[in-house]
Amino acid sequence: MKERIVETSIQLFDKKGFTGTSIKEIVEELNVTKGTFYYYFKSKEELLKDIHLTYIDDLIEQQKVILEDLEKDCVAKLYSLIFMVINNIGSNRESARIFTREVRHLSGKNVEEIRAKRNLFRRQYQELIEMGIRQGEFKDTIPADMLTFGILGIINWTYYWYNPEGEVSEEELAQMFTNLILEGVKASS
Amino acid sequence: MKERIVETSIQLFDKKGFTGTSIKEIVEELNVTKGTFYYYFKSKEELLKDIHLTYIDDLIEQQKVILEDLEKDCVAKLYSLIFMVINNIGSNRESARIFTREVRHLSGKNVEEIRAKRNLFRRQYQELIEMGIRQGEFKDTIPADMLTFGILGIINWTYYWYNPEGEVSEEELAQMFTNLILEGVKASS
Repeated sequence: MKERIVETSIQLFDKKGFTGTSIKEIVEELNVTKGTFYYYFKSKEELLKDIHLTYIDDLIEQQKVILEDLEKDCVAKLYSLIFMVINNIGSNRESARIFTREVRHLSGKNVEEIRAKRNLFRRQYQELIEMGIRQGEFKDTIPADMLTFGILGIINWTYYWYNPEGEVSEEELAQMFTNLILEGVKASS
Repeated sequence: MKERIVETSIQLFDKKGFTGTSIKEIVEELNVTKGTFYYYFKSKEELLKDIHLTYIDDLIEQQKVILEDLEKDCVAKLYSLIFMVINNIGSNRESARIFTREVRHLSGKNVEEIRAKRNLFRRQYQELIEMGIRQGEFKDTIPADMLTFGILGIINWTYYWYNPEGEVSEEELAQMFTNLILEGVKASS
C-alpha cells in the first residue's frame, strides 16, 4: 500500500503540483481512507521527502557502482554515468521533475537531508572529473566544480525534453553527449 | 500597477508555487482590491501567461540581436548567447524558475503560444549551430538538434545553482562553458 500511495502521489504532484494536491485527493484516487495515509506518512511533506529520498538514494547507489568499477577508465565511467541518467528517464521522469521543482516545499531537517544527498551526488561526479585530471585523461582548463555543473546541466535537462521512444536511442544520446563533453564541437583548423 | 502585480506574483509563485498562491494573497500583499487585479488580468492563468511571455520575448529579442551581429563569427556568437543567459540570472532568476516549473498550469491557446516561443528560442540556437557547421567552424559529429539540447541544458541549469555574487564572475563562467562546448575536456594524447 505504501508503494501505491507513493506512485499515485507522484502522478498527482507532477500534474497539479505539490501544493495543488491534497491528501484528500490522494486517498480518493486510491479509494482508501485518510487513516490509511497517516498510517504510512505523518504528513504530505513526509511523503514528499520519501519520494525525494527514494529517487536520490537510487541514483547515488547506481553512481557508486560505476565509479568503483576497476575495469573502466574515467572516459568510460563518464559515458556510463551519462547513460545511467538517460536510462532512468523512462521509468522515473515524474519523480525527477518533482525532485527539481518541489524541493522548496521541504523544510527544516527534511530539506537538509535531501540537500546533503544532492551534494553527495554532485561531489561524486566531481571526483570522477578530478580523478580524470590527475590521471591525465582530462584537461584541467576548466575548474572541476564548474565543469561538474555543466555536465549535470546537460544530463538533468534531458528530463524536460528527451523522449526515450523517439528517434534517438538512449545509447546514441549518451554517446553524443559524452562526445560533446570529451571532444567539443569546434572544427580543428 | 500592472507591473507591481506581476512582480509580487513572481515572488509568491516562486516561493509557494502557482497553485499554492491565490489571487487573494496577491492582492493582500499589495494592499489592493480584487477588482484591481481583474482590471489587468482576466484570471490567474492570464497573469501566469503574461509572466511567461515577458520572459521569453525578452530572451528571443536579445538572442536575435546577437545572431544578426555581422561582426561576430559563430564561435563569438556562441559565447555571447551563453553570457546573455548567465547575465540574465541576476535580474530574472525567479521568472526563469517559474518558466521551467509552472508551464504545465497553462492550458489551451496559452500553452500553445508559449510553446511556440520556446521552440523559436531553441530553433534560433540550432540555427547558429547549423550555420557554424556550414561555415566549417563547428564539426558535424553530433546532430545539430541534439547538440542544441545539450547546450541549452548547460545554460538552463545555471538558474538552479549559479550565484552571480559568488567567486566566479558571469564572464568567467560564460568563458568556461564556451570552452567546454568548443574544446571538450579530453586531454590530447
